[in-house]
Amino acid sequence: MPPPASSRVGAHNCIARGGRFWYQRDVNRVLLEPEEVDASGMAVIGGRRAAHVHDTLHGRAGRAVKVGIVDGPRGRATIREASAERVVLCGTFDEGRPPAPRVDILLALPRPKVLHRLWAPLAMVGVGRIVLTHAAKVERNYFDTHWLLPEHYRPLLLEGLEQAGDTRLPAVEVRRRFKPLVEDELGALFSDAARVLAHPGAAPDLAALAGLARRRVVLAVGPEGGWTDWELDLLRAHGFAAISLGERRLRTDVACVALLGVVQATMG
Amino acid sequence: MPPPASSRVGAHNCIARGGRFWYQRDVNRVLLEPEEVDASGMAVIGGRRAAHVHDTLHGRAGRAVKVGIVDGPRGRATIREASAERVVLCGTFDEGRPPAPRVDILLALPRPKVLHRLWAPLAMVGVGRIVLTHAAKVERNYFDTHWLLPEHYRPLLLEGLEQAGDTRLPAVEVRRRFKPLVEDELGALFSDAARVLAHPGAAPDLAALAGLARRRVVLAVGPEGGWTDWELDLLRAHGFAAISLGERRLRTDVACVALLGVVQATMG
Repeated sequence: MPPPASSRVGAHNCIARGGRFWYQRDVNRVLLEPEEVDASGMAVIGGRRAAHVHDTLHGRAGRAVKVGIVDGPRGRATIREASAERVVLCGTFDEGRPPAPRVDILLALPRPKVLHRLWAPLAMVGVGRIVLTHAAKVERNYFDTHWLLPEHYRPLLLEGLEQAGDTRLPAVEVRRRFKPLVEDELGALFSDAARVLAHPGAAPDLAALAGLARRRVVLAVGPEGGWTDWELDLLRAHGFAAISLGERRLRTDVACVALLGVVQATMG
Repeated sequence: MPPPASSRVGAHNCIARGGRFWYQRDVNRVLLEPEEVDASGMAVIGGRRAAHVHDTLHGRAGRAVKVGIVDGPRGRATIREASAERVVLCGTFDEGRPPAPRVDILLALPRPKVLHRLWAPLAMVGVGRIVLTHAAKVERNYFDTHWLLPEHYRPLLLEGLEQAGDTRLPAVEVRRRFKPLVEDELGALFSDAARVLAHPGAAPDLAALAGLARRRVVLAVGPEGGWTDWELDLLRAHGFAAISLGERRLRTDVACVALLGVVQATMG
């Protein structure tokens, strides 16, 4: 007879309660806000993080968990007390900050449902800066979504970081006016990063990625319908080289993850 | 004053109803089942497809839409009649079947929520065959999910194809026993495809992808916790070369899309 489900959980992220299963997200590092950690490395957490440490990771007094401070160093913590409501951690943060991602993304604002879905994967894959802008094929009312408010997207970014084991929160900016952004603001936002734009094309073309090793990159991703000719011309005139994954139309969240995978792989 | 939201919808996928917005999925090609299309190319559709053609694409009599037959050719159709409940299409299917994807995926079954999220992106990015198997870090009860039943996952695969504009439905198989699968069944399932496995590693390593251009590839993706040493040894002994995107732990759906992007980009 197999062991009861409740004894086979833990790292596998599944809690049996009264015969039903709750599938939770994966946390490979518990993130703490700087103000939660005192000078001796102690932190008291509650809410979903306490429940997660206690119920899903089966954290008990004496055991260790990976921890990190948001935008700060990584480390390990010993659990001093654990209940589903309150966990006391004693951490040593001696593993340094993770290296900064070398890719930034300039993104035509996707529809709200897709934007919601995109925050965690962007943090998971690792981007330094996320700049959201308007484009001809972006509905103006997309900018009204609450998924553009830090109090709504920050928890999703943290979720992605916890899954990836990272601590570096991407910087997020909304620069709604596309033309001034491209003409005047790129240098300040992305410094001397190599400029690459993605656009659906008949044949996959990644030639512009050659020679990116060791450089920073900013990747411009358009709406699902693509950039317009005017937008493409403006981006090209400001140094963006076009790449394409082929003629398939990908949902923006899928396109971003596939493109970031390719760009990061090219950068080595 | 901006025009009312309802006049700015259509291709942009957003329907205003009484001041609220329903964001729908993107359909770049309406897929028809073979038995829905008569000898003259006529098809009558209802349900969510009719509502989508009428409400979101603003399809009206006389206009054209891209169509395709599931696992068959692509083409264009003229709308003969359109209401939110019933659309009559007259199609010409002369654009051939899209080329078959050259990548297959062998996937350790992810938790149900992630599996649910993965079906559409797999079809969107384009894979020929999806084989789901067990691994040490897969919970046995994951196999009880309804997301492994064709009546539940097929609509999600179709959704991915409609977004991508493809018609080729990936073949799906559940081969729960990992050892017999790797030892005896790979040749029949994947023919002479190059064998590549993904495993989180300290440093990104894609050397095994060199020389994949023009070949078929099967990509083996493990659980979020990675393959065990025993599983890795078995896969390596059967010709799988390891690649890594680095040490970040990615959710399985994010890992699959990033890896498929990289593999497809490498294949050219």
